[in-house]
Amino acid sequence: MSFCTATYRIHDPKADFRRKAESIAVGMTVGSWTELPQLKQESMRKHLGHVVSIEEHEEPAAGRYADVTIAYPDLNFTRDLPALLITAFGKISMDGQIKLLDLGFSEDFLSGFPGPKFGIEGIRSLLNAPERPLLMSIFKSVVGYDLDGLQEQFLAQALGGVDLIKDDEILFENPLTPIERRVEVCRKAAEEAERTTGKKLLYAVNLTGPTSQLRSQALKAINAGATALLFSPLAYGLDVLQELSGDPDIQIPIAAHPSLAGAFYPSPQYGIAASLLLGKLMRTAGADLVLFPSPYGSVVMPREENLAIRAELTRTDLPQKTSFPVPSAGIHPGLVPQLLADFGHDVVVNAGGGIHGHPGGAAAGGQAFLQAIDASLKGISLEEASKTNPELQEALNMWGGRK
Amino acid sequence: MSFCTATYRIHDPKADFRRKAESIAVGMTVGSWTELPQLKQESMRKHLGHVVSIEEHEEPAAGRYADVTIAYPDLNFTRDLPALLITAFGKISMDGQIKLLDLGFSEDFLSGFPGPKFGIEGIRSLLNAPERPLLMSIFKSVVGYDLDGLQEQFLAQALGGVDLIKDDEILFENPLTPIERRVEVCRKAAEEAERTTGKKLLYAVNLTGPTSQLRSQALKAINAGATALLFSPLAYGLDVLQELSGDPDIQIPIAAHPSLAGAFYPSPQYGIAASLLLGKLMRTAGADLVLFPSPYGSVVMPREENLAIRAELTRTDLPQKTSFPVPSAGIHPGLVPQLLADFGHDVVVNAGGGIHGHPGGAAAGGQAFLQAIDASLKGISLEEASKTNPELQEALNMWGGRK
Repeated sequence: MSFCTATYRIHDPKADFRRKAESIAVGMTVGSWTELPQLKQESMRKHLGHVVSIEEHEEPAAGRYADVTIAYPDLNFTRDLPALLITAFGKISMDGQIKLLDLGFSEDFLSGFPGPKFGIEGIRSLLNAPERPLLMSIFKSVVGYDLDGLQEQFLAQALGGVDLIKDDEILFENPLTPIERRVEVCRKAAEEAERTTGKKLLYAVNLTGPTSQLRSQALKAINAGATALLFSPLAYGLDVLQELSGDPDIQIPIAAHPSLAGAFYPSPQYGIAASLLLGKLMRTAGADLVLFPSPYGSVVMPREENLAIRAELTRTDLPQKTSFPVPSAGIHPGLVPQLLADFGHDVVVNAGGGIHGHPGGAAAGGQAFLQAIDASLKGISLEEASKTNPELQEALNMWGGRK
Repeated sequence: MSFCTATYRIHDPKADFRRKAESIAVGMTVGSWTELPQLKQESMRKHLGHVVSIEEHEEPAAGRYADVTIAYPDLNFTRDLPALLITAFGKISMDGQIKLLDLGFSEDFLSGFPGPKFGIEGIRSLLNAPERPLLMSIFKSVVGYDLDGLQEQFLAQALGGVDLIKDDEILFENPLTPIERRVEVCRKAAEEAERTTGKKLLYAVNLTGPTSQLRSQALKAINAGATALLFSPLAYGLDVLQELSGDPDIQIPIAAHPSLAGAFYPSPQYGIAASLLLGKLMRTAGADLVLFPSPYGSVVMPREENLAIRAELTRTDLPQKTSFPVPSAGIHPGLVPQLLADFGHDVVVNAGGGIHGHPGGAAAGGQAFLQAIDASLKGISLEEASKTNPELQEALNMWGGRK
């Protein structure tokens, strides 16, 4: 028999956690057990959940809680994320102070998920960048821009030598810059920049609209020359991401935006843990790159949660390809050494204000990041590197980070 | 100009809430404002969000917080829920202790949403029940059942005279009881029961599987004679519900299950308020019936949150039809007077254990509920009514509720 598991953190000042765990294991599978006649028990046993473990804790700050793991027979649900989430957290998400910390996928369940089409290696290969950390820049808000304004901003970022440029996730389908026209003008700007920088560049265009039209929107973008997609899976459903990433006609990487994730992960008592939501589930659903709030900037997530996301995206013991971690928000060149120390080389350094806000403009902003990455890889301090790199020096003057 | 609004509760011991509010209004629309040249400001003004109100509070238990309302120009997003949610709560859901309390839809935005096809009046008309509260019963877990077992359980519930029977939300597509076969045998059982009870009966079959196949699954069920659908919108995305409910080929009511809702609403600091999530958004997306945890039973939600959901589902100042509130979990006949006092007549009394656990069986369980509803409508106490209604008497003996 094959099982998927779910691990919950249950806060309760006086619950009998063993009894609670058993009621979940029975209640979310066969419904009732002890009342079943012997014969019925025999036929139903293969559908019965069971308690794997219970770890009780009592801490002054967190109070009394238990981490409970339940096993659910694969036989009970289909090979899709909605079915597993409904089984493991559908009803009981509403039953007291309970947070879903993790899901454990059986080999059989996981075999239904192709995972990322490109992943870290595939994206490195598209960019001819086999080893180094990548650099992504984000459009400043371009709501209300026309195609010329968009192209101008794209080119300025691209000339700094970034590897990826992504749309703002709040840029929806609109008459001024519809997706296929956006792709066309940005592709031209990318080609122009590539001639100057000698570097390949991917542009992740934001995929939006009614769910049933997302596929045709993606194909429209691809026909116009799109090189990557940006998508907000939590606003649409993880299964929608999975269907897009598994689509044989969509042969470009997908970057998952964490939009709405804060409705799930920050509470200690409720919701879904960041490492599961933005790590394991995003990778399983096929995201090639996953953005999440960094621990360094304005929108913060604790460092250990960031590293737990990273661990899920990059662990190599799974059949699915790895996904690129993209810690985001508040990143400036002075943070690069810390970022690389935390994430290693398999990371996308992602900046918005840290590129656009550079005193020398967006191109200089990109260059300052590349200089910081290069110095970090060579073990040279930013202070030292800034002596021969004026763009980096200006960035350090602006945002700090010399030590 | 036309705006949608979002109201947030922001907890922070020392923030300048005015500044915070303004940074949201600018940051989630045009990105930056004061740095823009005059000419650019003129062209961008129509895209700029603004602060509508800020109410600061400081309470011993809840600490210091503010309820902040921001207006977002309709011009910035398309007429779909993912676009509005990404705009209003995408990124800022991750920015500190912030909960989305409400969304205000402009007339223009709301005009993109047909809402429920049937709603309260439509379902009453299907059931020939113009005024009284309705009664729904839930399959006990039927994971692992074959068609005969399913039919038997269906018939037992149906003979009690219930108006609706719903699948368990954890019953997914499976070889023993695939959706079209489930519909066929339950339709036969419903017809059999209707001959005995003289009452119409709707069966909400659980719609599951990959997102892109939900429509064809629904049509398969409808071809087999389905009379209603059960769907878990939070596991798939509210937009998927909207597309199903707006589909001209799906001419049966949809009951929305609150599966996973507990990941969103219970925390005071994070997530999305129940009245918005299970009230306004479900109705806007077209749910004809909406289930949510009652304040009476085992899975509890505070009574005022229940009533706020009810208010959103049944307010009559909107172009969309109203949706039936279905407070669920832990309901037994003794609770009926309280339930009707709280919800009025436009409510579906929904019971699982309170019907199946009746000492006389599920049919007697249904009858006891009908007797309790009938007595309550006539202003007769359950105590009094139980003297001439043995099924109600047994129910009161079992679960209490005489006073």
